[in-house]
Amino acid sequence: MTIKGFTNKAAVYTEPGTLGIGIQDLEKPSPGVGQVLVKLTHSGVCHSDLAICKQSWPILPFPTPKDQVGGHEGVGEVVELGVGVTEPKIGARVGIKWLSDVCGSCSACLEGDDNTCSEQKISGYYTPGTFQQYAVSSAKYCTPIPDGVDSAEAAPILCAGLTVYSGLRKTNTIPGDWIVISGAGGGLGHLAVQYANRVFGLRVIAIDHGSKSDLIKTCGAEAFLDFTKYNDEQLEETIKKDITGGRGAHAVMVVTAANKSYELALRFLKPLGTLVCIGMPEGAAVPIQSAHPARITNQQYRIVGSAIGNRKEAVEALGFVARGLVKCHYRLEKLENLSKIFEDMEAGKIQARVVVSLN
Amino acid sequence: MTIKGFTNKAAVYTEPGTLGIGIQDLEKPSPGVGQVLVKLTHSGVCHSDLAICKQSWPILPFPTPKDQVGGHEGVGEVVELGVGVTEPKIGARVGIKWLSDVCGSCSACLEGDDNTCSEQKISGYYTPGTFQQYAVSSAKYCTPIPDGVDSAEAAPILCAGLTVYSGLRKTNTIPGDWIVISGAGGGLGHLAVQYANRVFGLRVIAIDHGSKSDLIKTCGAEAFLDFTKYNDEQLEETIKKDITGGRGAHAVMVVTAANKSYELALRFLKPLGTLVCIGMPEGAAVPIQSAHPARITNQQYRIVGSAIGNRKEAVEALGFVARGLVKCHYRLEKLENLSKIFEDMEAGKIQARVVVSLN
Amino acid sequence: MTIKGFTNKAAVYTEPGTLGIGIQDLEKPSPGVGQVLVKLTHSGVCHSDLAICKQSWPILPFPTPKDQVGGHEGVGEVVELGVGVTEPKIGARVGIKWLSDVCGSCSACLEGDDNTCSEQKISGYYTPGTFQQYAVSSAKYCTPIPDGVDSAEAAPILCAGLTVYSGLRKTNTIPGDWIVISGAGGGLGHLAVQYANRVFGLRVIAIDHGSKSDLIKTCGAEAFLDFTKYNDEQLEETIKKDITGGRGAHAVMVVTAANKSYELALRFLKPLGTLVCIGMPEGAAVPIQSAHPARITNQQYRIVGSAIGNRKEAVEALGFVARGLVKCHYRLEKLENLSKIFEDMEAGKIQARVVVSLN
Amino acid sequence: MTIKGFTNKAAVYTEPGTLGIGIQDLEKPSPGVGQVLVKLTHSGVCHSDLAICKQSWPILPFPTPKDQVGGHEGVGEVVELGVGVTEPKIGARVGIKWLSDVCGSCSACLEGDDNTCSEQKISGYYTPGTFQQYAVSSAKYCTPIPDGVDSAEAAPILCAGLTVYSGLRKTNTIPGDWIVISGAGGGLGHLAVQYANRVFGLRVIAIDHGSKSDLIKTCGAEAFLDFTKYNDEQLEETIKKDITGGRGAHAVMVVTAANKSYELALRFLKPLGTLVCIGMPEGAAVPIQSAHPARITNQQYRIVGSAIGNRKEAVEALGFVARGLVKCHYRLEKLENLSKIFEDMEAGKIQARVVVSLN
Repeated sequence: MTIKGFTNKAAVYTEPGTLGIGIQDLEKPSPGVGQVLVKLTHSGVCHSDLAICKQSWPILPFPTPKDQVGGHEGVGEVVELGVGVTEPKIGARVGIKWLSDVCGSCSACLEGDDNTCSEQKISGYYTPGTFQQYAVSSAKYCTPIPDGVDSAEAAPILCAGLTVYSGLRKTNTIPGDWIVISGAGGGLGHLAVQYANRVFGLRVIAIDHGSKSDLIKTCGAEAFLDFTKYNDEQLEETIKKDITGGRGAHAVMVVTAANKSYELALRFLKPLGTLVCIGMPEGAAVPIQSAHPARITNQQYRIVGSAIGNRKEAVEALGFVARGLVKCHYRLEKLENLSKIFEDMEAGKIQARVVVSLN
Repeated sequence: MTIKGFTNKAAVYTEPGTLGIGIQDLEKPSPGVGQVLVKLTHSGVCHSDLAICKQSWPILPFPTPKDQVGGHEGVGEVVELGVGVTEPKIGARVGIKWLSDVCGSCSACLEGDDNTCSEQKISGYYTPGTFQQYAVSSAKYCTPIPDGVDSAEAAPILCAGLTVYSGLRKTNTIPGDWIVISGAGGGLGHLAVQYANRVFGLRVIAIDHGSKSDLIKTCGAEAFLDFTKYNDEQLEETIKKDITGGRGAHAVMVVTAANKSYELALRFLKPLGTLVCIGMPEGAAVPIQSAHPARITNQQYRIVGSAIGNRKEAVEALGFVARGLVKCHYRLEKLENLSKIFEDMEAGKIQARVVVSLN
Repeated sequence: MTIKGFTNKAAVYTEPGTLGIGIQDLEKPSPGVGQVLVKLTHSGVCHSDLAICKQSWPILPFPTPKDQVGGHEGVGEVVELGVGVTEPKIGARVGIKWLSDVCGSCSACLEGDDNTCSEQKISGYYTPGTFQQYAVSSAKYCTPIPDGVDSAEAAPILCAGLTVYSGLRKTNTIPGDWIVISGAGGGLGHLAVQYANRVFGLRVIAIDHGSKSDLIKTCGAEAFLDFTKYNDEQLEETIKKDITGGRGAHAVMVVTAANKSYELALRFLKPLGTLVCIGMPEGAAVPIQSAHPARITNQQYRIVGSAIGNRKEAVEALGFVARGLVKCHYRLEKLENLSKIFEDMEAGKIQARVVVSLN
Repeated sequence: MTIKGFTNKAAVYTEPGTLGIGIQDLEKPSPGVGQVLVKLTHSGVCHSDLAICKQSWPILPFPTPKDQVGGHEGVGEVVELGVGVTEPKIGARVGIKWLSDVCGSCSACLEGDDNTCSEQKISGYYTPGTFQQYAVSSAKYCTPIPDGVDSAEAAPILCAGLTVYSGLRKTNTIPGDWIVISGAGGGLGHLAVQYANRVFGLRVIAIDHGSKSDLIKTCGAEAFLDFTKYNDEQLEETIKKDITGGRGAHAVMVVTAANKSYELALRFLKPLGTLVCIGMPEGAAVPIQSAHPARITNQQYRIVGSAIGNRKEAVEALGFVARGLVKCHYRLEKLENLSKIFEDMEAGKIQARVVVSLN
């Protein structure tokens, strides 16, 4: 429906498979049964948006629809309620996440495993996402934004923050354990360091490029290793001998998309240690080169995949931001610059997170 | 010490790296501080004995000592107590396991993870094992054999039974879940099927060669798949669609030593499912070919290594045998036939377990 | 809405606080947004229905509404869909449980704790229940009845079965552990014995009146103690010394509503053992007389309350019935006899469960 | 053995049941098989010592032996090794705990539940304790003191610190949850506040007498309630409504020995919340007055007893002190003042902990 004087500025993928992006004025979406309309003010920009735009993940089940609106870290205000909705109320500030909705009833949902719901809808891929001023969302599935958290800062928590928070819960660690975070200076990584240290009480060994060392140290890492300055054996030796005193780390979390990071990860672990896989390599599928059955058995390693998180974890992840324990570092940009942001992302030039303003 | 009229018949590895085995009459061992002397009546023969004899595991930390006595599934009676020992008493029936002793105080031991104790002694490799009539054992580390369990049947529980019991505890399953057991007709496999179904309440899909189907069905498998009759796609399809109704198994436990079994394992799993690695491939280390980070992440798989188990689990595993819920199938042989037994084992001719008599 | 030729026979509480019950022909209810209309064929009769009818639980938050339709273990067929409903389909067989709906979004719901949802609706108390031929239900909250399970048998699983199944999951036990079930011959008890033994692999010590011993033994109890034949010390001694070999049971589950059962329960436990509280005593609140802090601390007991269960557990509990592992014993009665059934229930004359037919 | 020039100054209970204490010069103890002799420099003074001296716990299994040496929080240096001991080495700094030894093999020990080991020896009650200059200890059971931790500060961690650390692990909480600590200003309490907040990431509501408010606030409590300023209803209201926003705390830990604290504890909990019982009331056993089965069931409360902790937890608890996250507040006194210290303890005049010097 086009309404006189109304605008819904949006960034759309005009040529999926390329970085072709157009800024368009779309119609106002209408909330269906059980849905709400959200007037968005901010959206985070995630590496997964880039993967969907460029179709670079072999795991995507269908081609990205032409002219789809991307984005899945949106924050805004509820402005219209669909049939049957009593919560949230008009005026409430809510977030739209990677999943715009799940069925809530399949076996995955009943286990709290939203990510493998058979009816899941991915925001910015299955359904129009948060790179626009007005988006519909499931009333049940959007997340309340706590008072005192800035909307721009809240946005990246809805995917990047949630993902690392949920992944950390799968590390089988207890407070005081050592964790290696591989890719510690990125959007996910810098949040992972903070949640690991300030929420879960872990001791963090951060690995990334040296240019990110200042950011990482303010996030609470106890050790920082610039991977450009060590060969593989030195990295392993430094972590096992010098830092953890002989056995290795209790957990490694890989948030980069590099196959190499995965290969190294198992070498950093102590016996019984856990590798949490989060970063999804693009291109052809390559097995984790160090994942030999005899070694996994003998050392009793655990390898665990983790993707986003569920509604409860989203509330919890935001709670720590509201209490000031976790802080998202971001650079605010205009929606119009999305193409350029994606280019910087591809070139590895982005530190922490970029958030686009939608006002 | 040689005692007149006393014999300690033993099978020793005369040429480690080959199947060279000699039967010798050794001196009587003496129990040290905290140790007991056990007069053994039976010992199970495990694939790991063969690997130590032939030195075929790349993971072994040092060459098998010449003339070492192999064996690590021994049952017998305590006949002498070392200094400081009050338990077990003279006359008690006890078992000697894969580990003859652990330190009991390192971080691995404090976590109940005997297998990675930094001071562990492996029976039949570090210390003389159970292919002899008299062996010393740590008083704390040997396992009481419950009344009503035949010694010959108890022997394989001390390693094969313990290993699969402990592995099943790492499957993250609840009663009623589906588990695939790959290698279900072997020494470990036929016990795994029973523990899985009769103890943990799991529904078992057994995979093995067709010659083992009768044994496997008596063990409680709900479905049996003869891997020689299916190609990979058919196996996956049968498990995912026909048997489990579309999603796949909650867990797969690989007890074979075949890299191929590991590659297939992840294909049988439902999202959030767990692969437990137990079988240790011989020869060059090969990564699990299907262990792609993006797939592990997206499906949230868990891959867990499990090796033997701890003292508590040994007591529990035997308890189910005493109650008649689990029954070890074995063929009784003379110690003198050990060479031939190893040859049969290499040729894949052994069904369930072989136990040697030491009387 | 009254429809010519249509009948909705119902049993209503004409004088809450008494056993006054009338059989009336009510209007056909209409499903709202997200709801379905279910044509019921059977409803179990639960002790909680009696408590609501008579208002005998001090914990009930408001007086039972006059002319409320009781019942909360209903099975029937979906005959009409409210706005926004796509699942379940018309014709699907579903169950209505103790809770007719929960909000699905509060902190309790996000933890899978349906029982303390702040917006929960109790069937047969907040909303008209299953003692009628047509009832509305939340589409999301009703439970699919698996093929092969008789509707009459399915009904009591929706509350009695679910409750004990969920309670057993809170016992901190592993297969092979001992559990005492206090009140083993009742509607909940006889199901608890079966789930405990056949699903969770526990060894069951059943306590009840001797008249129920035949039923209980067919349910899988390894020991049966007729509480009328022992004094308290003898019960404790028999359980601790004779049956469990000196330490006591790993868990006790009390499904009776007797304060005395709770007092005894802690005396049956081994150190670190768990008491699961399910039965809710009527009348004035009395503390558990044996719950002394020093004893709880010193023996490290755990006391855990459990009420009904969640949607996932309901599906699981029914699954074991479908597989033939658990069987509900019941007596089929006419709805018109509800008053008499309540009288028998008060007099302790009911063995296992009563189900009323609604056809 | 009396050695010329050697002194072993000790405080002994000359009249158990009273506060009668004498300072004596005892013989040098000799380490047996598997034991070490420790030259102690410091011992903490615990409320349990007072209870043993005065025999005020009804739960004690036998009368305190006349002239027993009390004490169970000792730190010193290994000066002699018994037969069979290789670790710890001569010169190592170690701690002696509440339990001087456990059997290491009974079912309790195999579960890591040292506190209910059937062969446990309590230091300062079964065996001479740490209120002396030389004490023997099990080599396996004493705890290494990490570098950088002052011996005087380490002493109270061995019982008070370990006990609250282990108790906090039983709270079923996750970081960000609210916990009430009842008795927050005492020896256990002020450590509990620190471990809760700085190690487990919990938000702490501290309850104690107002005189302890300064200490408690430096320990990391977010709210402090002076119980002398509120009636019961106000306390409940303040915790449930004002502080936790309507539902109550996720956990309450009672470290006082007051029955009243236990009665109130359940009233502070949210549904599904956990009460951890640590403080052991003296005198006649009184049930927890608010522990009504119907309420426990309906609210799904958990009540868990916790006593001391195991060897692994002792190492962990000290690790956080070594890292500076937890700091024990204590007052250093002479051994000769033990009588006076006990009198102050009885009068409730002691803030945090008293440590006696043994040099």
